[in-house]
Amino acid sequence: MALPAEFHELAKRLNNWGRWGEADEIGTLNLITDDVVRAAVATVASGRRVPLAVPLQHDGIQTGVIPGRVNPLHTMVAVNMEMFGPGTVATSDDVVTMGLQAGTHWDGLAHVSHSGKLYNGRPADSITAHGRAAFHGVEKAGHIVSRGVLLDVARARGVSRLDGDHAVSPEDLEAAAELAGVTVRPGDIVLVRTGQIQRYLAGDKQAYAYPSPGLSIRTPEWFHTRDVAAVANDTLTFEIFPPEIEDLWMPVHALHLVEMGMPQGQNWNLEGLSEACAEARRYAFLLAAMPEPFVGGTGTPVAPVAIL
Amino acid sequence: MALPAEFHELAKRLNNWGRWGEADEIGTLNLITDDVVRAAVATVASGRRVPLAVPLQHDGIQTGVIPGRVNPLHTMVAVNMEMFGPGTVATSDDVVTMGLQAGTHWDGLAHVSHSGKLYNGRPADSITAHGRAAFHGVEKAGHIVSRGVLLDVARARGVSRLDGDHAVSPEDLEAAAELAGVTVRPGDIVLVRTGQIQRYLAGDKQAYAYPSPGLSIRTPEWFHTRDVAAVANDTLTFEIFPPEIEDLWMPVHALHLVEMGMPQGQNWNLEGLSEACAEARRYAFLLAAMPEPFVGGTGTPVAPVAIL
Amino acid sequence: MALPAEFHELAKRLNNWGRWGEADEIGTLNLITDDVVRAAVATVASGRRVPLAVPLQHDGIQTGVIPGRVNPLHTMVAVNMEMFGPGTVATSDDVVTMGLQAGTHWDGLAHVSHSGKLYNGRPADSITAHGRAAFHGVEKAGHIVSRGVLLDVARARGVSRLDGDHAVSPEDLEAAAELAGVTVRPGDIVLVRTGQIQRYLAGDKQAYAYPSPGLSIRTPEWFHTRDVAAVANDTLTFEIFPPEIEDLWMPVHALHLVEMGMPQGQNWNLEGLSEACAEARRYAFLLAAMPEPFVGGTGTPVAPVAIL
Amino acid sequence: MALPAEFHELAKRLNNWGRWGEADEIGTLNLITDDVVRAAVATVASGRRVPLAVPLQHDGIQTGVIPGRVNPLHTMVAVNMEMFGPGTVATSDDVVTMGLQAGTHWDGLAHVSHSGKLYNGRPADSITAHGRAAFHGVEKAGHIVSRGVLLDVARARGVSRLDGDHAVSPEDLEAAAELAGVTVRPGDIVLVRTGQIQRYLAGDKQAYAYPSPGLSIRTPEWFHTRDVAAVANDTLTFEIFPPEIEDLWMPVHALHLVEMGMPQGQNWNLEGLSEACAEARRYAFLLAAMPEPFVGGTGTPVAPVAIL
Repeated sequence: MALPAEFHELAKRLNNWGRWGEADEIGTLNLITDDVVRAAVATVASGRRVPLAVPLQHDGIQTGVIPGRVNPLHTMVAVNMEMFGPGTVATSDDVVTMGLQAGTHWDGLAHVSHSGKLYNGRPADSITAHGRAAFHGVEKAGHIVSRGVLLDVARARGVSRLDGDHAVSPEDLEAAAELAGVTVRPGDIVLVRTGQIQRYLAGDKQAYAYPSPGLSIRTPEWFHTRDVAAVANDTLTFEIFPPEIEDLWMPVHALHLVEMGMPQGQNWNLEGLSEACAEARRYAFLLAAMPEPFVGGTGTPVAPVAIL
Repeated sequence: MALPAEFHELAKRLNNWGRWGEADEIGTLNLITDDVVRAAVATVASGRRVPLAVPLQHDGIQTGVIPGRVNPLHTMVAVNMEMFGPGTVATSDDVVTMGLQAGTHWDGLAHVSHSGKLYNGRPADSITAHGRAAFHGVEKAGHIVSRGVLLDVARARGVSRLDGDHAVSPEDLEAAAELAGVTVRPGDIVLVRTGQIQRYLAGDKQAYAYPSPGLSIRTPEWFHTRDVAAVANDTLTFEIFPPEIEDLWMPVHALHLVEMGMPQGQNWNLEGLSEACAEARRYAFLLAAMPEPFVGGTGTPVAPVAIL
Repeated sequence: MALPAEFHELAKRLNNWGRWGEADEIGTLNLITDDVVRAAVATVASGRRVPLAVPLQHDGIQTGVIPGRVNPLHTMVAVNMEMFGPGTVATSDDVVTMGLQAGTHWDGLAHVSHSGKLYNGRPADSITAHGRAAFHGVEKAGHIVSRGVLLDVARARGVSRLDGDHAVSPEDLEAAAELAGVTVRPGDIVLVRTGQIQRYLAGDKQAYAYPSPGLSIRTPEWFHTRDVAAVANDTLTFEIFPPEIEDLWMPVHALHLVEMGMPQGQNWNLEGLSEACAEARRYAFLLAAMPEPFVGGTGTPVAPVAIL
Repeated sequence: MALPAEFHELAKRLNNWGRWGEADEIGTLNLITDDVVRAAVATVASGRRVPLAVPLQHDGIQTGVIPGRVNPLHTMVAVNMEMFGPGTVATSDDVVTMGLQAGTHWDGLAHVSHSGKLYNGRPADSITAHGRAAFHGVEKAGHIVSRGVLLDVARARGVSRLDGDHAVSPEDLEAAAELAGVTVRPGDIVLVRTGQIQRYLAGDKQAYAYPSPGLSIRTPEWFHTRDVAAVANDTLTFEIFPPEIEDLWMPVHALHLVEMGMPQGQNWNLEGLSEACAEARRYAFLLAAMPEPFVGGTGTPVAPVAIL
């Protein structure tokens, strides 16, 4: 089963391979220049900080459907251990086993391949069990700080959350940008709010996972045209799921990660940010969302913070 | 073996229990107000970003001396898996097992107890194997963004790195602050550079671990007086190791974490920042160093970034 | 809430503390002498072997109800890795993260304490997060090979499996021993079949876990009188669950592990053995059920085999 | 770099593909018939049991040289947890993360491939990160019980352990069989003692790992001729390491696992067994060495026991 022609046509239009050199491993993160960061810093008005990560815990987001993507198993290896003798200062220490994409995370560029290729034409088989991602590992991303823009699609449509079969369209993004009073610019990180994470926060993981509103196959071009650096939202699947086109699974993943070389974020809790932006009547802010530098990682947990 | 009287006298002078209420679980992070953040943002001049985390990998910092604090074991659970059939978009996915304090990390307030107590008088036995840290878990910290100040003690003393038996003194901090041209203020996060991490970067983990320069027992009072929000440095042990006073192990940990309720960071790579600050002739910057929100965690990996 | 008087009276009657010396850490396994093993070997007639373990896999028995007792997460760390260059012999290698008691397992003597004590009067707090079980770790058991006796209670009662509220009584054991034509002897390992594991094998983990038939609080005395070395069955909870006496949870665990010092096995698949014994009209056999020697382990996976 | 012609000639002579049918996944374990087991049982004279596994602990055999093959990290997830309220029966529970081949183990047939093939001609790429071993997983082996024969090469040569550069030859095996007074028969499991594990037991892991005595490339034919079911020894590398023929790495692994379909065991502690056999003047015994049934596992920890 090959990918359909309409996918390949779209792919050709959005392709960034070679744009930042043959050796490039960070794709659209190249768009975040010092100038962009200075402008991002200039958006800060109140100093208010809004964290966007969900808690990391064993009773987390994953339901077992995605093979091996396990919720955090967090265990103590020492509890008040008096390492230097009775009555001395005591330490507690812990370890975790978890899927790197179990909670609030970035997809790295090596997370997805299609037609045997990764971003920038690297062969998919450069990923191996013992070597992990030889190219585009999340440790290469280095640091992700830029201007964040909240496109609150749910609010723009006057609902608390989008229906499970709602594909977020370019028109939705336009309407949300208008609500925000913001023009999306090169290097921006766009946060698209669907409200879907309310289902998880209410304790219904299954309903959160599926069916899920998410980005339409028509949105990557919108992001590409605006030279966005990264996109994140508040869903498990990121894109509309099940997909818009029968048997064309995960086209948005493939377009963003493989063709454009653009990282994407999932399971971001945008509820508090939605309130904060609405209160402040400002939807642009400084966003810090640092990847943990797992060497060869195809994804990474992230604890993003918006600074308004 | 009880802790000596001199420790208890010092502890009494630095104690912050009750200062932010009986229910407080974040200690000196309370000092980071919106005003502090706005002032921190105002330090940004160039938009240059310097990441401060060491790569997370199996051949990491830990040598096995600290029980259970294992370097990251990062394995693939899917490599180009075509979940929806042959020829479809393929995904790769990974998991990790690691000590939360294996690499660049924050010590949470529950990491250390003494005399049966945690910060704010909570009983040490509120930490259990199955419940982890009931109080002061790292998920409570929420977000750590403030003004960062580099006190480059090695540079101020004209050496590339301090000797293994050098206890960083208040006088060292003063000299470094003078070099920096910065007055440490309430809510600041102070980064103390010893240069010791050069040993790890050069491949000698044992020499990095021990003996190690680090903070003197005399420095917590210096930080307390200035109402610093957090302190991090570029060593494994944080404080001088072996300790200055025979049989008084980890007094700085106990003073910071238990008495003051102040998080501390270890294994931060401050080499690039040292160069950047020296070039820019500015030692204050915006620092984002977000804890991963492990529920009940006594520590957390962190990928800090300085924005100059 | 203290344990009721009736529990303590029973406990006193069954207590084996000191019986094999103050330093003893293996309890009733002392009853397996060379003579017992020779007699066990003498039961073998056909040489047929019946394995009793359930497969170890991520979609395993655990449902998440028992905190931290995770099903095996089994991942590859190498897939056809040509370590010595292209075209050379290739290796594949794997790792696992799992609860030691996730699948077919032995409870070690340190798995349970009551009233602050472990078997043989050892203090419960000798178990710590960093030291694990200082006494009675499963590595002490060494080897478990003896005569196995199948008491097929379901078959003796003429049902394929017992109801969820059926407490297996001494009378049930007698009836099954009569069906088997076997007199239980000192050093025997008794396998009690309820048929409950059929629920797991049929894919219904929840029904398997709860409610569950299992041993009555009246059976430990039956085992004690006969000087049985160990008991295993085909349930998750081992004993009737919910319990027979309101608010007296896990009394059989406490009597076996703490008072008698007798290991117990759970999640053993006795379906094939039931068929084999019925066919052969013999219910005694050589049983090998070796603990994996985890130092300080409170339990261990086991892959038992009956040799008929 | 292709494998040399001499390897391929040898491979052809030893090849068992198709011998037990095209669908076979257990190779030489087919040779363990009920008759073989009855004969094995008949060797038991004293009932003495000798365990052959090394303890499973974090300070275990692995040195980090084999990527991802980590020593057991064994942590408590509950310590005297009173799940049903204060004063009730308390439980302790533990989890482990470990390489399946970290300690005393069996190599499964899927552990090694060469020239793109596994045993019985299965394609090497049937092993994947998400599916593990689709063919020949260790869970297929089911149960390994047979006659064990100790070939105590070190003792036969009059040394406590063989030198690091000693390749165990067919002549060594003959001499040891003569010392043992045993004729190796079809279905036997041969344990070859080099004494090398003394180095590990003495605390020198590096010396244990390398250089190591082990089986010569000339021995697989010896085992093949005698229709041995499995072979295990007391080394990390199993075969002489570094190898006898320059640039021909792991030929014995490839011949045993891929060509013959014969499982092999490593890191077996044969020191106690050597003493026991010498005392009893008998070198044949009943051996139970059950694989843990990891679905798709390429290897498995094992806790073997010899019953003399």
